[in-house]
Amino acid sequence: MLRAHQRAKPSAEYEYLGDTARLHYGQRSPETIIEYSMHASQFLCDAGVDAIVIACNTASSVALTAVQRAFNGMRVHGVVEAGARAAIAASPAGRVAVIGTNCTVDSRAYEKAIIRLAPHAEVHARACPFLVALAEEGWTDCDIALMAVRQYLEPLVDTFAPGGPDSIILGCTHFSRFADVIRRLLPAETAIIDPADTLAHSLAKSISGGLRGRKPTTPVSFYATDALQRFSSVGELFLGDSIPMESLERVDLDNI
Amino acid sequence: MLRAHQRAKPSAEYEYLGDTARLHYGQRSPETIIEYSMHASQFLCDAGVDAIVIACNTASSVALTAVQRAFNGMRVHGVVEAGARAAIAASPAGRVAVIGTNCTVDSRAYEKAIIRLAPHAEVHARACPFLVALAEEGWTDCDIALMAVRQYLEPLVDTFAPGGPDSIILGCTHFSRFADVIRRLLPAETAIIDPADTLAHSLAKSISGGLRGRKPTTPVSFYATDALQRFSSVGELFLGDSIPMESLERVDLDNI
Repeated sequence: MLRAHQRAKPSAEYEYLGDTARLHYGQRSPETIIEYSMHASQFLCDAGVDAIVIACNTASSVALTAVQRAFNGMRVHGVVEAGARAAIAASPAGRVAVIGTNCTVDSRAYEKAIIRLAPHAEVHARACPFLVALAEEGWTDCDIALMAVRQYLEPLVDTFAPGGPDSIILGCTHFSRFADVIRRLLPAETAIIDPADTLAHSLAKSISGGLRGRKPTTPVSFYATDALQRFSSVGELFLGDSIPMESLERVDLDNI
Repeated sequence: MLRAHQRAKPSAEYEYLGDTARLHYGQRSPETIIEYSMHASQFLCDAGVDAIVIACNTASSVALTAVQRAFNGMRVHGVVEAGARAAIAASPAGRVAVIGTNCTVDSRAYEKAIIRLAPHAEVHARACPFLVALAEEGWTDCDIALMAVRQYLEPLVDTFAPGGPDSIILGCTHFSRFADVIRRLLPAETAIIDPADTLAHSLAKSISGGLRGRKPTTPVSFYATDALQRFSSVGELFLGDSIPMESLERVDLDNI
């Protein structure tokens, strides 16, 4: 998500907060996720940001409205709306599959967003909680990944009319790491939608050009709520390059 | 662990606390695990228990000493010592393999406990973080489980002299669910040690007989720190039968 934003808007400065002491949000209750999202948003507000992007699909699914209400002078963006729009645009027959965490799927946030945009769409979702651990282990392009993704996708695809879904939303940031495996399992015409990429592009268009041309002095400040070493090593898997330890700071959200 | 204790000591009453809002401890830093273990121990002390069993291998590995010091009038037991003793007893050549979470393996707690008991033992450990998610998904006896366990065990077994380890310690409560798969992958003479079972049996022997014959009015009170529904459904996988919702209570450890 961060990298997609940076590609789309290289002139911006970013404060990146990973609530590593309290992950994974996907297996928490909605009220706990809302509470944690409030803490994180307060931290970012205090850091002086102009806008907040909730890059986590789970937090976007259950906490976006609460955060927008609580911080109503702040632009707060979630990934669900962007993902829903992109899926509808890529689904001529209106058949959209969604994979996400337990909490994202239970919230039906994607389904509601899609139906608002396209009332006749057919949406089916499936929780794939175990892919989160698989991604963090770095096992994303091996036989185990292929079997696990197949085990989740086959029953999901079978819930659609013959022909299967037109598109599939990767409704968890971790799942973009399985895009290649998913591509091998689904027909070539099925669109794979990464809501993080979609949101990054739409934000880059909407953000005013005020920052353009100014080279940021500190492009990204990273903050984590637990051990920095693990944040750095897991972060590297997702960001594609290393996070310098000197740009990382440990913070406490429990007492915010 | 609870069921092993109940089989060994059916007359006792139990307060069972699952810190579900802040799991999994295995991916947290040692200082965070110590902090959380202190909160949990304080809660149990306040509930009036006679003894505390830290059933989590990760918390036993990094927080046992700190909890024993902080609650020094209380008997506090961890699983590591019991597991180490059982492994040594089952290892004629003194070759012990350990599997656990990242934090348990990084702490070298099992290695230190085994070497204290048997200075010439050969101990090698491997973190298998992803088996936690696999167990919680209930995928413990399928091809994915077999492949994942094999992917972890093969390099671990190869670090030993020819003949491999005499015993393997299942150094995470979740891993007992893979005992059958591990049995299929290792020679029949390799002992599989479940520290929770071992500790339960040794505690049953050591606890005085004062409770014997008295039928507990409430055998187990369950407490969880996040949604009770998930605690109940995941708990059922591990306890082997259902947890009645009326015996479950949600508690908050953040403000203890």
